[in-house]
Amino acid sequence: MELADIGMIGLAVMGENLAMNMESKGFRVAVYNRNAPGEEGVVERFMTGRAAGRNFIGTHTIEELVSSLKMPRKIMMMVRAGDPVDDVISQLVPFLTLGDVIIDGGNSDFHDTERRVKQVEDNGLWYISTGISGGEVGALTGPSIMPGGSPEAWPMVSDILQAIAAKLDDGTPCCQWIGRGGAGHFVKTVHNGIEYGDMQLIAEAYSLLRHGLHMNLNQLVDTFSEWNKGELESYLIEITARILGVKDADGSPLIDHILDVAGQKGTGKWAVMTALDESDPLTLITEAVYARLLSALYAERTEASRLYATDQTEATPLAVTPEEVRQALYAAKLISYAQGFSLIIRASNRYQWELDCGTIAKIWRKGCIIRSVFLQKITDAYATNKGLENLLFDTFFREKISACLPAWRKVVSQAALRGIAVPGMSSGLSYFDGLCTLHSVANLIQAQRDFFGAHLYERTDQPQGTFFHTDWNGVGSENVSTVYNR
Amino acid sequence: MELADIGMIGLAVMGENLAMNMESKGFRVAVYNRNAPGEEGVVERFMTGRAAGRNFIGTHTIEELVSSLKMPRKIMMMVRAGDPVDDVISQLVPFLTLGDVIIDGGNSDFHDTERRVKQVEDNGLWYISTGISGGEVGALTGPSIMPGGSPEAWPMVSDILQAIAAKLDDGTPCCQWIGRGGAGHFVKTVHNGIEYGDMQLIAEAYSLLRHGLHMNLNQLVDTFSEWNKGELESYLIEITARILGVKDADGSPLIDHILDVAGQKGTGKWAVMTALDESDPLTLITEAVYARLLSALYAERTEASRLYATDQTEATPLAVTPEEVRQALYAAKLISYAQGFSLIIRASNRYQWELDCGTIAKIWRKGCIIRSVFLQKITDAYATNKGLENLLFDTFFREKISACLPAWRKVVSQAALRGIAVPGMSSGLSYFDGLCTLHSVANLIQAQRDFFGAHLYERTDQPQGTFFHTDWNGVGSENVSTVYNR
Repeated sequence: MELADIGMIGLAVMGENLAMNMESKGFRVAVYNRNAPGEEGVVERFMTGRAAGRNFIGTHTIEELVSSLKMPRKIMMMVRAGDPVDDVISQLVPFLTLGDVIIDGGNSDFHDTERRVKQVEDNGLWYISTGISGGEVGALTGPSIMPGGSPEAWPMVSDILQAIAAKLDDGTPCCQWIGRGGAGHFVKTVHNGIEYGDMQLIAEAYSLLRHGLHMNLNQLVDTFSEWNKGELESYLIEITARILGVKDADGSPLIDHILDVAGQKGTGKWAVMTALDESDPLTLITEAVYARLLSALYAERTEASRLYATDQTEATPLAVTPEEVRQALYAAKLISYAQGFSLIIRASNRYQWELDCGTIAKIWRKGCIIRSVFLQKITDAYATNKGLENLLFDTFFREKISACLPAWRKVVSQAALRGIAVPGMSSGLSYFDGLCTLHSVANLIQAQRDFFGAHLYERTDQPQGTFFHTDWNGVGSENVSTVYNR
Repeated sequence: MELADIGMIGLAVMGENLAMNMESKGFRVAVYNRNAPGEEGVVERFMTGRAAGRNFIGTHTIEELVSSLKMPRKIMMMVRAGDPVDDVISQLVPFLTLGDVIIDGGNSDFHDTERRVKQVEDNGLWYISTGISGGEVGALTGPSIMPGGSPEAWPMVSDILQAIAAKLDDGTPCCQWIGRGGAGHFVKTVHNGIEYGDMQLIAEAYSLLRHGLHMNLNQLVDTFSEWNKGELESYLIEITARILGVKDADGSPLIDHILDVAGQKGTGKWAVMTALDESDPLTLITEAVYARLLSALYAERTEASRLYATDQTEATPLAVTPEEVRQALYAAKLISYAQGFSLIIRASNRYQWELDCGTIAKIWRKGCIIRSVFLQKITDAYATNKGLENLLFDTFFREKISACLPAWRKVVSQAALRGIAVPGMSSGLSYFDGLCTLHSVANLIQAQRDFFGAHLYERTDQPQGTFFHTDWNGVGSENVSTVYNR
C-alpha cells in the first residue's frame, strides 16, 4: 500500500475539511478518529462518504495510522484543545521515531503549546503548533494558517501547509512562519480576540441601524452590501449582509428567530487574560467578550428589562446618519486592531518571539474570519516603520481616525442618551481619549493610593523612577509600602 | 518570660501597624522579620522605636518566634504575596505542633489559599487566610477583616481578629467568618476590584468637574466635601476632598505635581481574571484596571496627544451641572457594586463557599478603603431577599438608578462628544443598557458563528437547549461543531 503524506487525527468539522483540502492538493492523507463511547464507525462514515473514491487511508488505531505514513512522519491533531491534545501526544510518542513531526492545528492555549514544544522535542520529535482560521469553509477551501513551534520542522511541513492555505492575489500563501514555541497559537489567540471585536462592532452597527434608525431588513442588507464595497470590505461584513437576507421557512427574516444568547469557545477570554498578563489595555476586545457573557444572562436580562423598561426602540430615530454609524464602526475597528497589535508587540518582547507584525497582518488578508482589505494597511504601516509602537501613530490610521472622529463621538453620544448599548464603540472611544490625554486622572489615583496605603507617587517635576510619600494623615509609621509595582 | 498571645512575621507597613493594633488591645505580640540582604536590625529598629516600652517580644529566628508563643500557637504572616508565603509556611511547619494556627493576612491569590489550606491541614495544623483592608491607618486603628480557611480554627483566632477590627456603631466587629478555603481572600479580591472601580469613578468625576466644568481646586474641595455629607459619604470621597486641598512646598496644589501614571499591585487584575473564569461581565472594574494600565503608557500617551491634539480642556464648559456629575458617579457606583456582588454569588456557587452577601457588605461598612454609608443598603437588600440574583433588582437600587439615569446618560454623552475619557461611567452604562435589553444583538453574533463555524444557534420559538444549524453557504459537510459552550 502506498504510504500517506500526512496523518490526520480527529474528523470533526475542522479536521475533516482540512483533510479534504489536503487531498485536493494532491496529498495522500491517512485519517484516524477514536470512537467516543456510544459512537462507532466515525472513520468508516468518512471513508464511505466524502472520502469515497479519493486518496485517503482510513485507519482504526494510532499504531495503524503511524504505520501508514511516509517518514519522517507528519501527523496533524485536530482534537479538542486541552487534555485531549496531551492524551493524543502520549498515545503517539511511543510509535514515532526520531525526527517525526506532530502538528497541533486546534485552538490550543499558547502556554500549553510552550510546554508541549519542549516536551515533544525532549522525545527527539518536532512539534508544530499552528493556529488555523477560516471556519468550516476556510478549512476546506483555504484557511489562514499561523504556524509556530520547532523552527527546524517548518521546512518539513511548509509544502503541505502552504498548499492548503488561502492565497493572496500575488500567490503568496496565507501561511508563513510565525515564531518558535507558542507564537503561532498566541497569534491565533489575538486573531480570535480581534474577531470578537469585529463581530461586536458589526452587531452594534446593526443595532444602531435597526433599533436606532428603524431600518428594515431589506435596507439593512443593502447597507451592509454597500459597506462591503468600500473600506470596510471584509468577510464578516459580507456574511452579515447575507445573513440578514436569509428567510425562515415561513418567509420571515431568520435573524428574528435566532435567540440573542451568544456562545463562545473561550479564545476571546484567553486574549483578555493575556492582555492582563502583559499589562496591556485591550479594552475593546474585552468589552466584546463581556457583551457575549452578558447576552447569556437571559433570565437576568428579562427581569432587568421588566424592572427598568428602558427600551426606547420605538422612539423617534437617533439623530445620526447611516454613514455616521459606518464611520463609528470603522474608527472603532481601527482602535481594536491597534490594541490587538499592541498586545502582539508586548507579548513578542516578553517571550522573545521576534514576531513580524506586517507578515501577521498579511496572512490574515485571506482565508480567515477577519479577512479584509483593510489588513493591507497594517502591513503597509509596518513596512513604513518596522518599530511602530502603536498603529495609531501611523499616518493612515491617524488620518482615518481623525476623519471619522466627529461621527464616532456623535454616535456614541447618541447611543448613551438613548439606551442602545454600544460597549465596543464606546470603550474604543474611551481608550482613544485616554491615550490622547496628556493629563490623565491617574494623579488623583496615585494620591489616593499614597494616602491610604503609602504606595508612593512620582512627580511631574522630578525624574520618573524617583518616588515620594506625603504623610497625608499626619500619623502612621515612617514605613512606606515595600511593594511598588508600576 | 511571659509567652506571647500571637506571633507576627513581617514588619512592613501593614504588619507593623497590625502588631501595634493587637498590642493596644491587650495582646502580647512576638514579632519577627528576616533581614533582607544588605539590611539589618529590622526587629531592633521596631523594638527600640514604636514598640519601646510596650508589650512586645522581639525575636530573631523562626524557631525563637515559635518558642515565644502560648499554645496553641497563632502566627500571622504579613509577607509579600506569592512564593514568600509558601517559604514562610515551610519554615514554620517543622517547629509547630498539632493544632497550631498559621494566619495569612497578606493579599494572597485565593487559588493559592485553597491549596495552602489543604497543605497546612495535612500537616495537622490549621490555616486562616484573611483579607485585611484599611491600609496603613486602618491596620493600626481598626481594619476590615475577611477571614476564611479552616473553620475549626476560627474560634481560636476570633478574639484577637475581632478585637483589632473596626467596629460598627452597634459594636459589631468588621470581622466575621467568611467561608472555608480561599473564601476570605476571594472576597478581599472583589473588595479590591470594587476599590479600583470607586477610585476610577471618583477620578472621572474629578476630571469632568475640573477639565469639563473648569472648577478650581477650592471649588473641588468644597464639592467633594459636600458630596461626602450625602449618599456618597465614604472614605474615598473624604480623602479626595482632603487630597485636593493639600499644598506643595511652594503653596501650589500638590495634586498638580503628581505624575499621572497609576500603579497597582495586581489585585484588581485578579478580580478581572476571576470574573472571566466565572463568565461574569465585570465591565466597570475591568475598565478601571485598564485605565490604570493606560495611564502607565506615558510615552505612548505623549505621542498620541501630540498627533491627535484632541485636548479640549480649554473649550467652553460641558453642558452638565456638578449635580449631574454626582448622579452619574452614584449610578455608576451602584452598577459597580452590583457587578461585584454578582461575581461573589457566582464564585460562591462554583466553590460551594455559601457566602453571605449581607454580612460581607456589613464588614466593609467600616475600616476598609471602600467603607461607606451606602454599603448598609446592600446589607438591607440581602436582608429583604437572601436569594437576590442581581442587586439591580432590589428596590433601593432600582429607584436610585432610575432617578440618576437621565443625568448619567447626559454626562456620558457629553464626555464622549468632548473627549473626556470616562471609561468607568460609560462601561457601567453600556452594561446597564445591555442588561435591560430584551433584544440583544447576540442573535446576529450567533448567526455569524453558525455561518462561519457551524457553531449552532437556539431559536426564540423553541425551547432553550435545542440547537439549530443553517447551511448558510449551501456547501460543507453535514458536520456541525462538536464543541458548543454557552
